[in-house]
Amino acid sequence: MRAVIFDLDGTLVDSVYAHVLAWQRVLEEAGMPIPAWRVHRLIGMSGGLLTRAAAHETSREISEDEAEALQKRHGAVYAELLPVRHPLPGAVELLRHLRESRIAHGIATSGRRGDIGASLEALDVPSDTVVVDRTDVQRAKPEPDLFLACQKRLDVPPDQCFVVGDAVWDLLAARRAGMLSIGVLSGGYGEEELARAGAYRVYRDAAELLANIYQLGLRS
Amino acid sequence: MRAVIFDLDGTLVDSVYAHVLAWQRVLEEAGMPIPAWRVHRLIGMSGGLLTRAAAHETSREISEDEAEALQKRHGAVYAELLPVRHPLPGAVELLRHLRESRIAHGIATSGRRGDIGASLEALDVPSDTVVVDRTDVQRAKPEPDLFLACQKRLDVPPDQCFVVGDAVWDLLAARRAGMLSIGVLSGGYGEEELARAGAYRVYRDAAELLANIYQLGLRS
Repeated sequence: MRAVIFDLDGTLVDSVYAHVLAWQRVLEEAGMPIPAWRVHRLIGMSGGLLTRAAAHETSREISEDEAEALQKRHGAVYAELLPVRHPLPGAVELLRHLRESRIAHGIATSGRRGDIGASLEALDVPSDTVVVDRTDVQRAKPEPDLFLACQKRLDVPPDQCFVVGDAVWDLLAARRAGMLSIGVLSGGYGEEELARAGAYRVYRDAAELLANIYQLGLRS
Repeated sequence: MRAVIFDLDGTLVDSVYAHVLAWQRVLEEAGMPIPAWRVHRLIGMSGGLLTRAAAHETSREISEDEAEALQKRHGAVYAELLPVRHPLPGAVELLRHLRESRIAHGIATSGRRGDIGASLEALDVPSDTVVVDRTDVQRAKPEPDLFLACQKRLDVPPDQCFVVGDAVWDLLAARRAGMLSIGVLSGGYGEEELARAGAYRVYRDAAELLANIYQLGLRS
């Protein structure tokens, strides 16, 4: 295995719960009340798909324009709820280890550049780190496009890439991209939810992954 | 089986994610940064135990006074993050069904009266509903005291009571009280986390429990 592709929210940065509360508030304002735990299980999908899923759960229909407006509003509420982004335990150290070991790695997120800037800063990664975001592909997770775009930029074939993510959407997109996946609990999913969705291993967080990195057989 | 004892937050009212974010913010202000998913797994414990758990995770010590101040501050931030409380799907209907069927039931929560008032109002329960809160017992969950106090007020022996809860702390306290327990996913735990902690059955939420209530063999 020669590369590691990371999800961002809930995997490297402690932002899932703020995303949940922000989405729940925005959806409720729009007449689509969804229980928080259901919103939690939608985080990690593209914003467009998330708004459509919410519309479906509340038996409504929404236009493209409305979906776009909800995503903008979500970005504002999210920034208000979480003005400072914190890396998850071990995230900064894990990325540093990969850099120093010259193991190919990148970040692939359903988030948009405007929403993720503060998170990338918090991770203290150099500006030449490979980052693929929502705006780089036509379809975000659970479509495989984000991971495939990242793998191409890393120049490593899919079957030599690990995906690390906290949500079933990461694991689903990884399978569709022909990549092995590793789950982390730091986004709040239970271990079995991730294992069932196809995670090859499940670690508590980036720190536990780093402590066990030789289990992954990575080479530079 | 002759009685059902409900947890409140995450079981009847959609408040867990706001509790998580509120606790995380308060703990961080106090120099105890804890990832949100770890805070999530502490919700449902007594506030005192939660603050001690957070202190332990960050290798700190806190005094009783400091723990008390943190709980007060949490109550304020929580109310700010969640000004309106929403019942979870099926919660109002399930409680109404039990009233109309004359099946004994009550609510037992680690929350304090000041923090839970708005939640009880949202559930639209009559004022004579049995509610046991943090201030009624010496020790909250995972000690069995809350459930035992509720069972005594309902005048039903423990082995004829079901506990319904969203957190492992409910299930642990139920076992210690000699009661069977039922898990609900509406607090954001995974199904297997609840089943492993001893839940006799796990339903999606109060609505699914109500739809399957005859599986529980309750009588008035």
